[in-house]
Amino acid sequence: MNSTTGPGAGTAAGFSRRALLGGAGAGLVAGAAGGAVLGRATAAASAPAGPAGSGALGAGQVPFHGPRQAGIVEPQQARVHLAAFDLVPGAGRAELRTLLRRWSGTSARLGRGEPADEYESRIAADAGPCSLTVTFGFGPTLFDRAGLAEHRPRALDPLPDFPEDALDRARSDGDLWVQIGADDALVAFNALRVLQRQAAGTATQRWQMTGFGRTPGATARPVTGRNLMGQVDGTNNPRPQDQDFAAKVFCGADEPDWLAGGSYVVLRRIRMLLDNWENLSEDRQERVIGRRKSDGAPLSGGGEHTAVDLAAQNADGTLAVPADAHVRVAAPASNGGAAMLRRGFSYHDGMLPDGSPDAGLLFLAFQADPRRGFVPVQRKLSRGDGLSRFLRHEASGLYAVPPGAPEGGYVGQALLEG
Amino acid sequence: MNSTTGPGAGTAAGFSRRALLGGAGAGLVAGAAGGAVLGRATAAASAPAGPAGSGALGAGQVPFHGPRQAGIVEPQQARVHLAAFDLVPGAGRAELRTLLRRWSGTSARLGRGEPADEYESRIAADAGPCSLTVTFGFGPTLFDRAGLAEHRPRALDPLPDFPEDALDRARSDGDLWVQIGADDALVAFNALRVLQRQAAGTATQRWQMTGFGRTPGATARPVTGRNLMGQVDGTNNPRPQDQDFAAKVFCGADEPDWLAGGSYVVLRRIRMLLDNWENLSEDRQERVIGRRKSDGAPLSGGGEHTAVDLAAQNADGTLAVPADAHVRVAAPASNGGAAMLRRGFSYHDGMLPDGSPDAGLLFLAFQADPRRGFVPVQRKLSRGDGLSRFLRHEASGLYAVPPGAPEGGYVGQALLEG
Ligand code: HEM
Ligand code: HEM
Repeated sequence: MNSTTGPGAGTAAGFSRRALLGGAGAGLVAGAAGGAVLGRATAAASAPAGPAGSGALGAGQVPFHGPRQAGIVEPQQARVHLAAFDLVPGAGRAELRTLLRRWSGTSARLGRGEPADEYESRIAADAGPCSLTVTFGFGPTLFDRAGLAEHRPRALDPLPDFPEDALDRARSDGDLWVQIGADDALVAFNALRVLQRQAAGTATQRWQMTGFGRTPGATARPVTGRNLMGQVDGTNNPRPQDQDFAAKVFCGADEPDWLAGGSYVVLRRIRMLLDNWENLSEDRQERVIGRRKSDGAPLSGGGEHTAVDLAAQNADGTLAVPADAHVRVAAPASNGGAAMLRRGFSYHDGMLPDGSPDAGLLFLAFQADPRRGFVPVQRKLSRGDGLSRFLRHEASGLYAVPPGAPEGGYVGQALLEG
Repeated sequence: MNSTTGPGAGTAAGFSRRALLGGAGAGLVAGAAGGAVLGRATAAASAPAGPAGSGALGAGQVPFHGPRQAGIVEPQQARVHLAAFDLVPGAGRAELRTLLRRWSGTSARLGRGEPADEYESRIAADAGPCSLTVTFGFGPTLFDRAGLAEHRPRALDPLPDFPEDALDRARSDGDLWVQIGADDALVAFNALRVLQRQAAGTATQRWQMTGFGRTPGATARPVTGRNLMGQVDGTNNPRPQDQDFAAKVFCGADEPDWLAGGSYVVLRRIRMLLDNWENLSEDRQERVIGRRKSDGAPLSGGGEHTAVDLAAQNADGTLAVPADAHVRVAAPASNGGAAMLRRGFSYHDGMLPDGSPDAGLLFLAFQADPRRGFVPVQRKLSRGDGLSRFLRHEASGLYAVPPGAPEGGYVGQALLEG
């Protein structure tokens, strides 16, 4: 697993994929966090310059191995697959270990632009790794099933019910969670197919969702992304250069050893009632959020990155950022900013029976502790957020995200061999 | 409509989108056909060179106006939306004219990277046009509904039933057909939303599907794309430089005047039985198609673009390209190549109840006459194609694709004002 030549590396596919990339290490992009919170800055943007279309996007590479899993602080990719798997009856700790070892090895190989193994169907052949990342998480139900009950962290207690939830349990939860991101949809699908097939006999896929963000190069310079409501989304995320970034996003010493340096991820599939939303004037839309639509600047003034002044008033004495504005309600009481890193993707799954689009946000937030991050914020939002009239929370998940695996290791090793 | 400044051009959005592109004309790419049949060569590849991520992909521009509609011979984009609309009861020729005029004006503006109109929700703000194309087609049912029965071409008679068809009529057919392609999913979604909202009151959306292809730059050099079976797909398409290209793809003098220079498009939503397919050895997969998986070369020898030798034999006297190989059965009896331009996209709509992916090919083929193009080929395939064991045709459509609109005109004008 630690070797750079996987089982298939001597085959034609191994050859042609690496050859097309002009060398295995071409365009290596460190998994540094900078781009993630500056919006959709792209891995490809840091790749060696070359004429567009020359493969620079494809050459973007994010190392799988390292202290953190990939796919948390890295720039968001154009395409994401999310999937959850449940262990089959009879599968336990040993089978789980085999699967995670296999999944980790495959993810590392695919991340380097090498073929996966005997299951690879060449869907991604010719293409570079396209900044592929694969991230694994463990759901609350995994621990009992795999005989690991005593290792289950308290923070993995099921999320509370929120007033307006309309959750489909068949598309929620799950023992194992997988996030696959890449800047090319075929590369992402190939990875999903291989991981699905490797799970056969050990775990069955419980649900699977697909999302998207901006394609690298779609904007003239890297800017914060937009969601399907047309808003600039991601501005007030914690930034890696913030002193408390790691404390907000990554687990500390109060967690079980196997999770130290890991994280928790909350998933919410949130459908947007776009017909209603788009019937509002832009002016009213802006008051629902508390920020301008054109550039994301707070209604209290300044530019996108100016701090929101929640006390600011309009000339007529009303609050510049309304009492039920999303950014007011979502902002924590203290001035430190919310204790989570939002890294959501848009989704669009065609047409609902009423003719409206089945579309919205695959909300994903990584955090050191959901009881300090997602839960208190969503509690407030579910009561007082003006935006909630235009949303339906349709699915939900909470997963512990183990730390990254060193070269030669696999994700979850400290839990499974601890 | 003919002016380069749409209604919204003076607004902040109009300003910021054009400003980010560095000038309205930046990166204009002629709608020349070359790239289409050389695979997924991209418009962005022809845009001014610049470091990847600098917006070159976004700046790709395909003119809406011209003798042909855009989206037929242009390189395929990373993302496609297909949708069909039915006229509402009471809507007739006049309402149809108004809608097509509006849709055409909007498509031209969005194609230049300008905001659409009052319906624009800024989903695509900041991004360039990303090689957006919008293509319109007319279904067989449109003509009666709009009081245009005498203008309905004979070639628009419903397609025959084929033996293995498992068609869902709710996701087939329709009065109006729209194809939206772009290299950025938010740009494509924005265009779809605007067109959907503009149709309100005149036509209701009957069905909507989403597909994808490779992202420009995912490969080191432009190569023919792959489908979700992992095959090189598109090799033996007619090429614009072929003498008979126009005769195969565009309507001639035997068609009604309003359709001269137009085309017909056949849509088939074809699900792939990937679990079964991937259980075949690569060797058997290659014999099902008649070409090598690694590089698309025919099993009769040579490279990807070597002509297939259907008579070639293996050492043991068996046919190199098996009797039921897809390329043998799909190839026309004469040596001229099939009379259609295939321009399909992959689709993947999550998980089916049995756990397998709902994924396959949104087969699209443009042709001068479906009775000489798609129908005879599909007749042969439905009887003798080894590939058909791994496929399910789930939806179908046939539409007349009018010629392009000149500056100031709209698609379908010759029919509606003729
Ligand atoms: C479809 C649903 C949602 C949409 C469209 C949405 C949109 C936005 C937008 C446009 C902003 C302002 C820009 C920014 O700082 O990123 C924002 C901020 C924020 N949102 Fe949401 N949001 C959604 C759901 C949620 C949920 C479920 C949570 C957590 C429970 C959440 C937590 C936050 C936080 C913490 C901020 C930053 C507030 C601050 O300025 O401190 N959002 N959201
Ligand atoms: C999911 C379904 C399908 C798949 C995966 C598929 C795949 C392929 C592949 C890999 C090739 C060889 C490369 C190339 O020349 O493009 C090919 C060729 C071709 N296919 Fe298909 N195909 C499918 C459906 C169809 C259908 C429905 C038609 C038309 C009725 C069709 C017509 C053709 C033609 C005309 C050729 C070129 C044959 C020649 O060499 O002259 N295919 N297809």
